[in-house]
Amino acid sequence: MKIGVYGLGRFGSFFSSVLSRGEAEVIAVSRSVHTPPDGVSIRPLEEVLSADYLFFAVSISSFESVLRSLAPMIGKDTVVLDTCSVKVYPAKWMKENLPHNFKIATHPMFGPDSARGGLEGLPFVFSPIDGKDDERYEEIKSYISSLGLKAIEMSVHDHDKEAAYSQGVTHFVGRTLEEMHMEPTEIATNGYKMLMRIVEETCNDSLELFYDLQRFNPYAKEMRLSLQVAIEKVLNRLRSKEEY
Amino acid sequence: MKIGVYGLGRFGSFFSSVLSRGEAEVIAVSRSVHTPPDGVSIRPLEEVLSADYLFFAVSISSFESVLRSLAPMIGKDTVVLDTCSVKVYPAKWMKENLPHNFKIATHPMFGPDSARGGLEGLPFVFSPIDGKDDERYEEIKSYISSLGLKAIEMSVHDHDKEAAYSQGVTHFVGRTLEEMHMEPTEIATNGYKMLMRIVEETCNDSLELFYDLQRFNPYAKEMRLSLQVAIEKVLNRLRSKEEY
Repeated sequence: MKIGVYGLGRFGSFFSSVLSRGEAEVIAVSRSVHTPPDGVSIRPLEEVLSADYLFFAVSISSFESVLRSLAPMIGKDTVVLDTCSVKVYPAKWMKENLPHNFKIATHPMFGPDSARGGLEGLPFVFSPIDGKDDERYEEIKSYISSLGLKAIEMSVHDHDKEAAYSQGVTHFVGRTLEEMHMEPTEIATNGYKMLMRIVEETCNDSLELFYDLQRFNPYAKEMRLSLQVAIEKVLNRLRSKEEY
Repeated sequence: MKIGVYGLGRFGSFFSSVLSRGEAEVIAVSRSVHTPPDGVSIRPLEEVLSADYLFFAVSISSFESVLRSLAPMIGKDTVVLDTCSVKVYPAKWMKENLPHNFKIATHPMFGPDSARGGLEGLPFVFSPIDGKDDERYEEIKSYISSLGLKAIEMSVHDHDKEAAYSQGVTHFVGRTLEEMHMEPTEIATNGYKMLMRIVEETCNDSLELFYDLQRFNPYAKEMRLSLQVAIEKVLNRLRSKEEY
């Protein structure tokens, strides 16, 4: 089995290297020159786009145009998968641009920071686009499970809704607290130390990812509104207490 | 050395039991009937109020009136310490109500949840009120250090400022997210799991503690304002990106 990865940014480099820990041969390509990640070979574009399985590891906001320009060059038997952190729009873009390929939307829910302690049990979401009663779907899902990751099947809408209220709110809190310039302190409680780690890990991801998570998730706006409502409720209850 | 603890709520029970892990005899009293915490004896009020050291473990909002009503019964040689999570006001109340006792403001920065992994290195703040060149101050500070806790000396104002921007913001975030009814999800990222733990641990503390932390810390209002400003900045930057 040959797996191609298009895109070797922070996530793509890490992810392709993760994929190479199993039996598959992993080949990759990137617009800019990169040192090949551990276990991965850099190959010409044509070869990568014709692998048995092709993962796109590009930013959400660039995915549609990347797909449109590369679609004519993708092998006709190649199974195409995205790795975007939102699923409704990327699945739609794949359907529109790759009518003849077998397609699967996925979200590997980890990165170089969160996988530091190992891959075991980290969630990897599969959202079937062209059905799941297909051996190609079964094969890549088994391969991902063989790496220790936890394959989870869910619809693109269920994914985006749950992700907005978990990953989305976490990134929003992290970016907001970063804006407050939180500092380490000698009197940090354990809770504060965890909060600082959340700030650090979310802000290690690109600012582009943050904006994309908020803009391209159809449930993110509602999540942000409910966060604002919650803050107002807490503040109002505080105001109703007598000021000392 | 005999240490008295007044108040056996969630924190007082845990704290008196922690104090009994060293060489001192720890005695305690509470308004309501309680099972004695491990290593602690329940004794009559008069005896507890005349111990060598007397820690108050009552809520911030009740401390001033408790102090006022008990002050006449406190032993004249007893060193009086509070354990409130804010320090400016409690130190002021002790000065006003106990002109003849030696007094120390303290903040043990841990609780039953955060100390689950052991006491080693957990911060214990000392804010001297009647000077620190005194053997009574040295004695209790050494005792606390002997338990593995990290004694940190700071002024009441420095404490409250740093606590507002660490413990205060953590509790505010925890209570706000609780209001959003965050749920566990199969696709939880590590960051989201940490956020859920923060919600759980801050909401295990009483709602009274939350309000007291916000109302009786002179720097908390400014912290909440700066959190609101940070949220507005992040939201405005999002709005300035084109909506998809």
